[in-house]
Parts: sequence; structure tokens; C-alpha cells
Amino acid sequence: MVYELYYWPTIQGRGEFVRLALEQAGVPYMDVARAPESSGGMPAMFRFLDGEEIVHPPFAPPFLKVGRRLIGQTANILQFIGARHNLAPAGEADRLWTNQLQLTVADFVQEVHDTHHPIASSLYYEDQKKEAKRRAEEFRRQRAPKFLGYFERILEAKSGSTLHLVGSRLTYADLSLFQVVSGMRYAYPKAAARLERRLPRVVALHDMVKTLPRIAAYLASDRRIDFNNDGIFRRYKELDG
Amino acid sequence: MVYELYYWPTIQGRGEFVRLALEQAGVPYMDVARAPESSGGMPAMFRFLDGEEIVHPPFAPPFLKVGRRLIGQTANILQFIGARHNLAPAGEADRLWTNQLQLTVADFVQEVHDTHHPIASSLYYEDQKKEAKRRAEEFRRQRAPKFLGYFERILEAKSGSTLHLVGSRLTYADLSLFQVVSGMRYAYPKAAARLERRLPRVVALHDMVKTLPRIAAYLASDRRIDFNNDGIFRRYKELDG
Repeated sequence: MVYELYYWPTIQGRGEFVRLALEQAGVPYMDVARAPESSGGMPAMFRFLDGEEIVHPPFAPPFLKVGRRLIGQTANILQFIGARHNLAPAGEADRLWTNQLQLTVADFVQEVHDTHHPIASSLYYEDQKKEAKRRAEEFRRQRAPKFLGYFERILEAKSGSTLHLVGSRLTYADLSLFQVVSGMRYAYPKAAARLERRLPRVVALHDMVKTLPRIAAYLASDRRIDFNNDGIFRRYKELDG
Repeated sequence: MVYELYYWPTIQGRGEFVRLALEQAGVPYMDVARAPESSGGMPAMFRFLDGEEIVHPPFAPPFLKVGRRLIGQTANILQFIGARHNLAPAGEADRLWTNQLQLTVADFVQEVHDTHHPIASSLYYEDQKKEAKRRAEEFRRQRAPKFLGYFERILEAKSGSTLHLVGSRLTYADLSLFQVVSGMRYAYPKAAARLERRLPRVVALHDMVKTLPRIAAYLASDRRIDFNNDGIFRRYKELDG
């Protein structure tokens, strides 16, 4: 079965956490909204979001179509992929812990988004630039160090491999932390460089993921969309510092 | 085993979603931070948040202590309680769907929080009042109708019981939607009254949950903290309309 991923076709965004997991799982998937309209495209995505007849409609992209099932919410999709494709631990306690870490990543991603859209997603950045500057400053000073320092502390407290967040094997949470580090480097190059001095383990984990053969191949391919200023991690000079 | 819930002792906040599930499950639990310091209190909570020796530290409250295990992130705690105490469906597909709905509730709760704290949680409301007014207007006009309308649509599309979000039995997602409606009524009485005209099924679900014997007993007890302006749902006249 070919999985169908539905997400905005021109950005990494939240869909990228799913793309990374699918790539590492090595399963065939179609990035539907990126396909031409003859076989997909945005209309195909909106049919599931707006269709009155959909029983389990997702609130927003990304969502994954598996046979007739639709699975939405990034962390929820990752639970599904993790369990099926060996990117999550087998035991219930460790699975919940992996999910817990992923939800903390999700909270961080939301805060990153809100640095450039503190008032409303429906307004342009330019219409909330002043507020964005204030929020980004709080983010750089308080939130980013707190979140990233949390993951460093998790790795530090581990007795086994400090290159993995859970146990000694790769999970989707590792892939997600890689994405967060990559995004911070793109969006906040100055702040990220400063922060990373205190995050040796987080950086080592990022480097480990980057060189996984499947991930390296993906990153070098056309399937990986470049970071850009329509996504969640955006580079606005005035917000970095 | 007595579960130990750790959450801020003077607010409903995100902890309330867990309290409602524990109450409906009928399991003995201790609301630790609300206990006197001789047997709990805030220091007990901070020991787990700040303790260097904690292997699976939560990023923030609420978290649940089950024997030696610590489980954090509201939706994650609810997955655990749901599976153990019959507040989630048995099958994997329906469990993921319940989780997906809960994560959408969580996104909504975050947006509610950000209406009064659009710039930073670390600043007073008074220091971001102007921004809050702008954000709350967008929230009332766009986000609240979109989120609540989504849940109405889920109930409408169901062939079975429209008093439950998943299948025909109570899940923690129903309890959470009840809490959201209650919170909106407290924080945005005017906007909520207007919105509810288009949400007959959501309101019916709220009324059903409210009269569940265990929930009714809980709401009438001292264990239920009143809504107040330190929580997530806050009543600021200038933000409603």
C-alpha cells in the first residue's frame, strides 16, 4: 500500500516531521498536494478538509491517508508510523514517553510559528511586525533556551546512548529534534549559534540523523523542499539577534 | 495504587482535562500541589520539574505519577488514562482518532491562552493588553468558530450517537469538549452565546457530560476549582464582544 501524505506543497512546515519519518521508514508514499492536479494537487487535499461526507476529517494538514483511513495531527501520525515501521519503542511506557517528547517538540514548533505570527495566522507578517519583534525577543531569551535545554538535559540524564532521545535506538522523536535544530539554524542563525554552545548532545544527535543513509539521500533529493519564508521557520533578520 | 496528579494548585488550566478524566474514571488520585507541604504542595511538584536525577522529566505541568512512572503532556496523560480506565475505544484506529480530536482540543486551548498572552507567558496581561485585544478579535471572528464548528461537524457527520465524539461511548475527548464549552462560557460569555446558536450538538454533548453522576458530583465538590483570571480561560470584558 502506498501511503498518501497531504500537506501544503511549497513548505516544510509541520508536514516535514511526517516526511522525515516516512523517508526513514523507507515506505513508498506520495506527497499528494505536490503532484499535478491530474493525480493530486491542492484540490485533492481540500476535498478531504472540506468534504461533508468525510467521517474522520482532519482539522488541518498534515494528514496521512492509509487505505481508507485518514490520520491527522502530526504527533498522532507519527505514533502510527512509529508503531508500524519500527520508529517507536515496543513497550507502552516508552511509547508514551516518545509521544510526550514529540508533543513537547510540537509546542516548541507552535512557539516558533508565533514569533512571526503573534496576532493571527490570517494576517501578513508585515501587519504584525512590531508584535513579532517583541515576541521573538522573548522567544530567543526565554523559550528557545528552555525548550532546547530540556532536550539537552534528557540526553544528558541518559545512561545509555546519548545520541537517541529514547533508549538506544532511533525513534521519530530523534528525527523531529533534527528538524528543529535545522529550522533554528535557518530562521535564527545568530541565536542558534549562541544557543548551540550549550547543547552539545542535541547537536550531536542532529549530526547523527543528518548522516543516516536514508535521511542523507532525502535531504539531497528534490523531495526535500528548501526552507523558505512561507513555512514555520522563517528568516527575518529583524527577529534574530 | 493512588495516582498523583501534579498541576498548579489554584487554576483549572490544562490540568482540568486530566482531573475530569480521573474523576470520571473513578480512580483514587491525589492532587499533590493542592495538598499542604507536609504531604505535597508546590515544592513536591518542582522537585520533579527541576530534579537533575529525574530520567523522564516533564517539560511542564500537568504530569501524572503512576508508581515510579512520570507521564507528562495532557493528551499523552489522557491516552494513558483512557486506555487503562475505559475512557478510550479498544481498537487502534479509534484510539488514534480520539487522540487526534484531543490534540485539536489542545491546539484550541493554546489559542485561547494566547488571546490574553499573545506576546509572552512571562509578561503580565497588562503589558500586552493592546496586542491581546487584536488577537482576541481574530480569535472570536475566525478561530473559535472554525474550531468549535469542526467539532459540531464531527458530531453531525456521525451515523450513531451524536452525543459522543467517538463511537457511541464516552471517551476523554467528550470530557475535554465539555471543558472547552464551559471555559468559553466563562471567558467569552457574549461570543460563546453567539457561537452556540450554531453548535446544537456540541452544546448537547456538554449538557450530557455535565449530568454524568461522577462529573456532576465533582463539579459540585471543593475539588473543582472555580474559573478565575489566572487560568487559561480568563474573563476580560475588553476581549469579549
